[in-house]
Amino acid sequence: MSGQKLRVLALAGGVGGAKLADGLAQEVGERLTVLVNTGDDFEHLGLHVSPDLDTVMYTLAGIANPETGWGLAGESWAFMEQIERLGGPTWFRLGDRDLATHAIRTERLVRGNTLTAVTADLCRSLGVRPVILPMTDDRVRTIIHSRGQRLPFQDYFVRLKCAVPLDGLSFDGVASATFNPALADLARDADPLVIVICPSNPYLSIDPILALPGLREWIKQSGAAVVAVSPIVGAAAIKGPAAKIMGELGLQPSAAAVAAHYEGLVDGFIVDDIDAESAEEIRRFNMVVRTTQSIMRTKGDRASLARVCLALAEALMGNAG
Amino acid sequence: MSGQKLRVLALAGGVGGAKLADGLAQEVGERLTVLVNTGDDFEHLGLHVSPDLDTVMYTLAGIANPETGWGLAGESWAFMEQIERLGGPTWFRLGDRDLATHAIRTERLVRGNTLTAVTADLCRSLGVRPVILPMTDDRVRTIIHSRGQRLPFQDYFVRLKCAVPLDGLSFDGVASATFNPALADLARDADPLVIVICPSNPYLSIDPILALPGLREWIKQSGAAVVAVSPIVGAAAIKGPAAKIMGELGLQPSAAAVAAHYEGLVDGFIVDDIDAESAEEIRRFNMVVRTTQSIMRTKGDRASLARVCLALAEALMGNAG
Repeated sequence: MSGQKLRVLALAGGVGGAKLADGLAQEVGERLTVLVNTGDDFEHLGLHVSPDLDTVMYTLAGIANPETGWGLAGESWAFMEQIERLGGPTWFRLGDRDLATHAIRTERLVRGNTLTAVTADLCRSLGVRPVILPMTDDRVRTIIHSRGQRLPFQDYFVRLKCAVPLDGLSFDGVASATFNPALADLARDADPLVIVICPSNPYLSIDPILALPGLREWIKQSGAAVVAVSPIVGAAAIKGPAAKIMGELGLQPSAAAVAAHYEGLVDGFIVDDIDAESAEEIRRFNMVVRTTQSIMRTKGDRASLARVCLALAEALMGNAG
Repeated sequence: MSGQKLRVLALAGGVGGAKLADGLAQEVGERLTVLVNTGDDFEHLGLHVSPDLDTVMYTLAGIANPETGWGLAGESWAFMEQIERLGGPTWFRLGDRDLATHAIRTERLVRGNTLTAVTADLCRSLGVRPVILPMTDDRVRTIIHSRGQRLPFQDYFVRLKCAVPLDGLSFDGVASATFNPALADLARDADPLVIVICPSNPYLSIDPILALPGLREWIKQSGAAVVAVSPIVGAAAIKGPAAKIMGELGLQPSAAAVAAHYEGLVDGFIVDDIDAESAEEIRRFNMVVRTTQSIMRTKGDRASLARVCLALAEALMGNAG
């Protein structure tokens, strides 16, 4: 590592993104900002639920459920048992402790606070040092197109377990949404900025962020080195439906196909060691490629992958300078 | 008991009202309708909470917490622990299972269902046979006037534990509210109707119901025998601040003062045995008086008191017929 003080902006969705964000937090602490997808947000049982924000927040607070990847460790389920008894919807599981987050968020949003302000308060209460930002304070909702139907994201992802074909996506409300204004502070900072696109689902988790008007331009104008980590290892996703979706979109699931998706935006691309042979293809997208053991099983794995990201970014900055 | 099939309408607030409603339910089952105060309703942590409706519903379902009188038996508190950790408000306790009621209610209200319809669904899920009706589907909010301040009801009742003087009350929204339209079905029923004003707080729990435009007239026109049970035994309330409030309103706390409050509305009045000497004073309000052991410690006590109410009502109907 160089002695240079980097600022890091990570773009993240849920589980995979949260893990790398945790690795980056281990490396740069409060100099990390995580810009999180809110296209998955929805209203459920009267509450505003922000699944990706919570996964990132709980992971950085060290209180995430290590088995599920979402929700809280040591959670109890009395609320869900009673919801079932009362004939309410049980397809989306809300733990007793997790509910406190949604209730506080809902109340403060109703009072006119921004999602950014509420998230900052929750993070402070949980001792999270990095800055976690919702991608926008406006309402954007990811919609899955399947056989002529428009499915709200959680209906597709949780209720239907992604078991219907995805023909396309849209991000309702995105055209009139403003990306999080706190990004402006990052761009004004004197320290060099590194942007890391986490190994989240490119279509479901990262694209909603990148669809925000002006965000791609902001990234380019920031002068930041932009590094992405492939969520596809071999021909499979570490977790979630990324590979399945790529097939449905007519793509061969591979790290190279993810790189192609990010062409023009990303300067450095990290693939797993087992995808080393794809490096040549990826270089055609004007990316510098690194290979590493990219599967994050332990907290140490997260930090290792973060170091590879930062080292690649520094190398890219050296090339640029 | 006569062989006549009575319909019973009970007016009730929280704990005391719920207990007598349970006694009446033991006697007449699904021929009981409970019209419940909703002036205590409020929005808390993003959820619509209806404390009195829930106390009546949980009591009739046999799942109420016998120690507190409110909430569910065998409740757990993981949600509240996490609310505290997150710096949220802890003065109003919401149990993990109880939350399910509020969440389902909130979601269905947001979708445009009436509070009456939501309550009916919840009662069906919990196996409650009597009909529980909110006093209105419109928004009415009890406001406590204290030293020139206007306190929302739960701020006064729970947060401040009634520890500030009550100078007066108002029921915001009541002037434009419509009493529950399902009462019309009761009046049309061929079977004779008995109305029981439960031993709830006359000012905080019963007055919001009676303040609904047209309700007093509806009661009179219904031809029902109207029986009330004193919530004041000796100079004290069985539970809650009724006696304290009467003092603050310049009244001597007594069963007779409660009877005076209901003058012109109530035909028969039930006081505890220890208040037998007040019978003469109460008769001056044109009420037939019965004395009984009115404190409901056991489920059997509830049924006994209900039988006294029904017997008094039948006696009154005999007088009228």
